[in-house]
Amino acid sequence: MDQRVSFITLGVENVERANRFYEALGWKGSTPDGDVYFFQAGGIVFSLWNRAKLAEDSGISDSGGSSGFTLALNTRKQNEVDEIAGEVRAAGGTITREPGETFWGGYSCAFTDPDGHPWEVAFGSHYEITDDGQTKLKSPE
Amino acid sequence: MDQRVSFITLGVENVERANRFYEALGWKGSTPDGDVYFFQAGGIVFSLWNRAKLAEDSGISDSGGSSGFTLALNTRKQNEVDEIAGEVRAAGGTITREPGETFWGGYSCAFTDPDGHPWEVAFGSHYEITDDGQTKLKSPE
Repeated sequence: MDQRVSFITLGVENVERANRFYEALGWKGSTPDGDVYFFQAGGIVFSLWNRAKLAEDSGISDSGGSSGFTLALNTRKQNEVDEIAGEVRAAGGTITREPGETFWGGYSCAFTDPDGHPWEVAFGSHYEITDDGQTKLKSPE
Repeated sequence: MDQRVSFITLGVENVERANRFYEALGWKGSTPDGDVYFFQAGGIVFSLWNRAKLAEDSGISDSGGSSGFTLALNTRKQNEVDEIAGEVRAAGGTITREPGETFWGGYSCAFTDPDGHPWEVAFGSHYEITDDGQTKLKSPE
């Protein structure tokens, strides 16, 4: 199995509401049918689909809530973390951890989207962001 | 907020067990401290961390289970889906949907890892995989 991830699909209660939230953050997706939204997100595809359909398609039972995973956007500059926290608030997301220094030496905040899916927005020195939006780990120094 | 994803972190009960599963699928990660594992996965970083710590760091309560998201690996050839299903079985994962044709015109299977986190392994025509492992949506035809 290739060491890659192609898609992250979030299961949401209402795809239009979820799409509006990510659009309010400046993202632009497309939908073939109004049922699923696709966003080219750097080198992967981020998508939004009905939560019950996603669970059924994945062959799992939906335990409710959102836990067991966190997505992260790593920034090129520290002040982007504060800026994005403001954008998230304006878009109706919930800041679950205010911007601040982290135990691993970085600077980050955390938020949840309208479906409670968690994100971290982080600035640090252990990765680089390529011009085309990929995140690459640096080798340990 | 840039339209990118940098990290996907899965919260797991036992990071060593989770790492062994992904290693058995042929993945190779690194850990700075034995507490967290990082895998360069195409243009993003896939990581494994203690579930309770991840929930606390994300400012959410852990509702248990794993639902609300599904990861996908999209393949370059259809027969990779069958091959990977075999690798997943051998590694101790659970095939939750056997390989077969999908409603969207592709071919895929679904599985869960030892923590119940769902993946789809999919072959289709609406994306391309770049030489460096990025997944790019094709424009609608």
